[in-house]
Amino acid sequence: MKKIEAIVKPFKLDDIKDRLDEIGIHGMTVTEVKGFGRGGGKAPVYPGAEYVIDFVPKMKIEIVVADELVHPAIEAIMEAARTGHVGDGKIFVSTIDEAFRIRTGESGPEVLS
Amino acid sequence: MKKIEAIVKPFKLDDIKDRLDEIGIHGMTVTEVKGFGRGGGKAPVYPGAEYVIDFVPKMKIEIVVADELVHPAIEAIMEAARTGHVGDGKIFVSTIDEAFRIRTGESGPEVLS
Amino acid sequence: MKKIEAIVKPFKLDDIKDRLDEIGIHGMTVTEVKGFGRGGGKAPVYPGAEYVIDFVPKMKIEIVVADELVHPAIEAIMEAARTGHVGDGKIFVSTIDEAFRIRTGESGPEVLS
Ligand SMILES: Nc1ncnc2c1ncn2[C@@H]1O[C@H](COP(=O)(O)OP(=O)(O)OP(=O)(O)O)[C@@H](O)[C@H]1O
Ligand SMILES: Nc1ncnc2c1ncn2[C@@H]1O[C@H](COP(=O)(O)OP(=O)(O)OP(=O)(O)O)[C@@H](O)[C@H]1O
Ligand SMILES: Nc1ncnc2c1ncn2[C@@H]1O[C@H](COP(=O)(O)OP(=O)(O)OP(=O)(O)O)[C@@H](O)[C@H]1O
Ligand SMILES: [Mg+2]
Ligand SMILES: [Mg+2]
Ligand SMILES: [Mg+2]
Repeated sequence: MKKIEAIVKPFKLDDIKDRLDEIGIHGMTVTEVKGFGRGGGKAPVYPGAEYVIDFVPKMKIEIVVADELVHPAIEAIMEAARTGHVGDGKIFVSTIDEAFRIRTGESGPEVLS
Repeated sequence: MKKIEAIVKPFKLDDIKDRLDEIGIHGMTVTEVKGFGRGGGKAPVYPGAEYVIDFVPKMKIEIVVADELVHPAIEAIMEAARTGHVGDGKIFVSTIDEAFRIRTGESGPEVLS
Repeated sequence: MKKIEAIVKPFKLDDIKDRLDEIGIHGMTVTEVKGFGRGGGKAPVYPGAEYVIDFVPKMKIEIVVADELVHPAIEAIMEAARTGHVGDGKIFVSTIDEAFRIRTGESGPEVLS
């Protein structure tokens, strides 16, 4: 099992969710985060602004999937999240050792779908 | 060392914390997240609702523990978080390579307790 | 590639960011979290308080870096985040298997800088 973590532009969330639904991925966890990146701190300071805006609001989407869904999921997220402009975001993949469904106590990749 | 990540119903946070305290686990990090899951997007739209409610507020609890505490911690979380109804949540376990206490610079499993 | 996760005092965020910028680390993701730790639940209850304050607001900083930057980054964070008082925070390191830049589709450690 792998965790896919995508840091994306917030307005892209619905499109990403729809594309993942199409390939059978329904479970995900979303967090509002502040992103810093190349260009992330270069936002202009508007006259009257009280402080320098040096982060950009982003959404972090976390999806735990069975190994065979990792690359389909990444393709789906990249296509839905891409605008072609800077700041489209990053995707990070890491390994999940165990997964459990709390309601039933079941474990393993079966709990992911 | 392992990280236990539990996505749970927010009203269960205190019970989970109490159960973990009982087995000697006091350190944890909690984040308010939006959960999507099977059933998560099936909330009825109430008349007059301005948009489809398709996520459910959840709490993400993250706990880094020594290996021998992983299964006791998971048992404690599952028992405290379970209502028996859909949406009780998921638990994911992953590996932590290194841990540091900032105040002292110490590292290793000693910093977790 | 490794993910460095630092749970720190919120007022230290700017100093940490500056120190990381100095060593060439510009990309990071920041989340507002609630921290529980040794001492974290010992905050006094002020007269008139409606509930026991048993968590402390913290910032979680996540940085994915190439392996050779892990220890420089940890040093930078520890120095900038340390006050010497309890609650300075924790740093956790884990392994990232793959990383992608959404705008270009590139992958690997090149996308981190
Ligand atoms: N190394 C990193 N570690 C953790 N989070 C990162 C890292 N790099 C970027 N991010 C997160 O991803 C978000 C988007 O990054 P961004 O797309 O701007 O990357 P970039 O390398 O500048 O690419 P682009 O040139 O397309 O803008 C950032 O706001 C931040 O939240
Ligand atoms: N594959 C997943 N990856 C990441 N987060 C997930 C995943 N599946 C579920 N979650 C998170 O866990 C929360 C709870 O999931 P939920 O308990 O509804 O799972 P379920 O499989 O539908 O189980 P149940 O039948 O008991 O409802 C979701 O709202 C979401 O935040
Ligand atoms: N085992 C843990 N797992 C996950 N998060 C933790 C853990 N321990 C601490 N944290 C997070 O780190 C924050 C800071 O912890 P803290 O610095 O108080 O640790 P401590 O062990 O009490 O060290 P100190 O003696 O310096 O206070 C906590 O509020 C919590 O968010
Ligand atoms: Mg950028
Ligand atoms: Mg469900
Ligand atoms: Mg403490």
